[in-house]
Amino acid sequence: MPPTATQFTALVSSLPLQATQGEVFDRIASDVVLSSSLWANIALAGFSILLFVAMGRNLQSERAKLIWVAALLVPLVSIASYAGLVSGLTVGVLTMPPGHPLAGQEVLQPWGRYLTWTFSTPMILLALGLLAGTDRAKLFTAVTMDVGMCVTGLAAALITSSYLLRWVFFAISCAFFVAVLYVLLVEWPADAQAAGTGEIFGTLRNLTVVLWLGYPILWALGVEGFALLDVAVTSWGYSALDILAKYVFAFLLLRWVAANERSVGGADPLAGTTTTADD
Amino acid sequence: MPPTATQFTALVSSLPLQATQGEVFDRIASDVVLSSSLWANIALAGFSILLFVAMGRNLQSERAKLIWVAALLVPLVSIASYAGLVSGLTVGVLTMPPGHPLAGQEVLQPWGRYLTWTFSTPMILLALGLLAGTDRAKLFTAVTMDVGMCVTGLAAALITSSYLLRWVFFAISCAFFVAVLYVLLVEWPADAQAAGTGEIFGTLRNLTVVLWLGYPILWALGVEGFALLDVAVTSWGYSALDILAKYVFAFLLLRWVAANERSVGGADPLAGTTTTADD
Amino acid sequence: MPPTATQFTALVSSLPLQATQGEVFDRIASDVVLSSSLWANIALAGFSILLFVAMGRNLQSERAKLIWVAALLVPLVSIASYAGLVSGLTVGVLTMPPGHPLAGQEVLQPWGRYLTWTFSTPMILLALGLLAGTDRAKLFTAVTMDVGMCVTGLAAALITSSYLLRWVFFAISCAFFVAVLYVLLVEWPADAQAAGTGEIFGTLRNLTVVLWLGYPILWALGVEGFALLDVAVTSWGYSALDILAKYVFAFLLLRWVAANERSVGGADPLAGTTTTADD
Repeated sequence: MPPTATQFTALVSSLPLQATQGEVFDRIASDVVLSSSLWANIALAGFSILLFVAMGRNLQSERAKLIWVAALLVPLVSIASYAGLVSGLTVGVLTMPPGHPLAGQEVLQPWGRYLTWTFSTPMILLALGLLAGTDRAKLFTAVTMDVGMCVTGLAAALITSSYLLRWVFFAISCAFFVAVLYVLLVEWPADAQAAGTGEIFGTLRNLTVVLWLGYPILWALGVEGFALLDVAVTSWGYSALDILAKYVFAFLLLRWVAANERSVGGADPLAGTTTTADD
Repeated sequence: MPPTATQFTALVSSLPLQATQGEVFDRIASDVVLSSSLWANIALAGFSILLFVAMGRNLQSERAKLIWVAALLVPLVSIASYAGLVSGLTVGVLTMPPGHPLAGQEVLQPWGRYLTWTFSTPMILLALGLLAGTDRAKLFTAVTMDVGMCVTGLAAALITSSYLLRWVFFAISCAFFVAVLYVLLVEWPADAQAAGTGEIFGTLRNLTVVLWLGYPILWALGVEGFALLDVAVTSWGYSALDILAKYVFAFLLLRWVAANERSVGGADPLAGTTTTADD
Repeated sequence: MPPTATQFTALVSSLPLQATQGEVFDRIASDVVLSSSLWANIALAGFSILLFVAMGRNLQSERAKLIWVAALLVPLVSIASYAGLVSGLTVGVLTMPPGHPLAGQEVLQPWGRYLTWTFSTPMILLALGLLAGTDRAKLFTAVTMDVGMCVTGLAAALITSSYLLRWVFFAISCAFFVAVLYVLLVEWPADAQAAGTGEIFGTLRNLTVVLWLGYPILWALGVEGFALLDVAVTSWGYSALDILAKYVFAFLLLRWVAANERSVGGADPLAGTTTTADD
């Protein structure tokens, strides 16, 4: 059946996923600041992959290898994520709702970032949890709350029907983040102390907590929230946070694990809890 | 290249994801019965989150904590799910295929329900399985079959090309459901008896089985199937089932766990199977 | 706000997900070679499900049951996958980018294959890993790298903005595949030897490695790459690989497990690593 005029209008001001890939690809390619924020990460992720493969070659214990694979997956997911953004496949053009500072304007929305954080950030938490010698319940809490944070952050970024509901999803995402912070700041430090990895865990936890707090702040200040920063600057903000919270984080972690494999070389704590209780 | 007239027609009668968010948002907001079916769940999910956090504060054992986090994730996923429906982000406008009672008409399709059940229902099964003291193989079966049920239910709801294939996917989804029912009715009762949690497991299992049977029945009677019920009544049906099968279920479970932590305070059965076999 | 002409053009040459389901359904139904490549798999997957249920009836040990459920999930996911392709729900119409042999032409793209491989191939690796008696670190590596391979393969198939970036994603997907091959060819054979399942593992591993190498070759030769094969032949290629790598593979595995349950009847190796280390 033939479409009505209303349906056309509806369609075009529709879901961010509708924007044409080719058009978005051209817009990104022609904006040097924006595209450099993406290519810088592709280059650094590629370099990190090679470096991490080399660093993990001699690891022997199961727990150290698990930490290594989790850390290696971070730049692997990132390189795919940024290639997706560069191609335009995971970038939409959003018409902002009434109330938003850019209401009615079309804004480039790299929603693929949120999608891929859903896969990469659990790897960071898995590596940190294994380092701290966590049990299943705490790791399950950290990972599920983290996935909840990323998925609701994706929803916050994609809503175009209501400015209020964008912030409602922002608030839900932050609530999930609070649960992640609780595990990082209250639960795991004691585990790490008991496991003899308190010092390195403390360093990496501080790095993670401080940098991860940057993401919601950037959301609020950037195009998605109050729009005090433009698209390219917002993108560079996320890219810089990703560089520090992902590649630098994983490098520091792997360097320590490679030099101190004996400290994490014992039993896998995720399997060991029960056994210990039975002894 | 410029689009042809055929392509436009094709596009507009296309995937349900195409409906404009803003338009759907307005349609939902202007239908009091429909929107109340969504807001009632947002309110109840929010209340459940606060209540469950309070109820779980003093849990100590790993297994009790795992049950608690799984139960807490149910309203957390729900509040995000219903906020997504209210915003129109996860609601489409579907043109029903020939053969369907509403063939050729456009129908609001809140497909986000199926998507989020994919995340919330495994948590219910995880909590039930931990309560019953299940092993990995049975829990893996229950969770994977449940995810299969939800994803194929999503497909059933999104198909607009063939009335027959809507029911084919309904049948596939029911086949997955039969596998879930097998674990709930045949496998876990014996485990729970052995674990000393037979009585509470029996109560919660009956609640779950009866209520979960309501979902495919509602699908068949509602807009998605024979269309004997209209959109708003169908939505209230799902919302009422969600209230009972999710918040009331989780409340009863957590109340019992909080009062009987010693009964589930032993070893995590998922880790314990092998250890027991070695004794 | 009313759409501009540019926006219409943009939309129509847009994401592959845009193609109308009904139109795609008709195109598939009217192409006997193409539709037979899909229906043949629906029939074989259905037959495999019934056969596998019968074959696994008498399994007792947890490990054997886990292998059985993983193997059973392969045709279960497949039947849903092929029903989705037949309906047109998971098939798009893609306009190929400049540089591609079919540049500017619209091509049917059954992207649902990649989506469902993300769920079915980890089951194959889980079954193989359990057969080999792997530890968590190796299984985690195999499964995460496999999911990375499938998701980036999906991206490669969906990119319409740049011919180069299609091949970049192809290369990233192959890099993930190399990691999977490393586990299959280097890590697990030694485990299987130690576990006493070396012979059957070797057979099934060879079958898997040879057949899985067929997928990227077919991608390169088929419509998605150099377009030396047409849509229907490409589809038959994938369907034939699926028949051998999924149903025949799972049948051989289950036949062996049913006849040799004692060999895999011991402790679940995923739980057992730590316990053994404690002995």
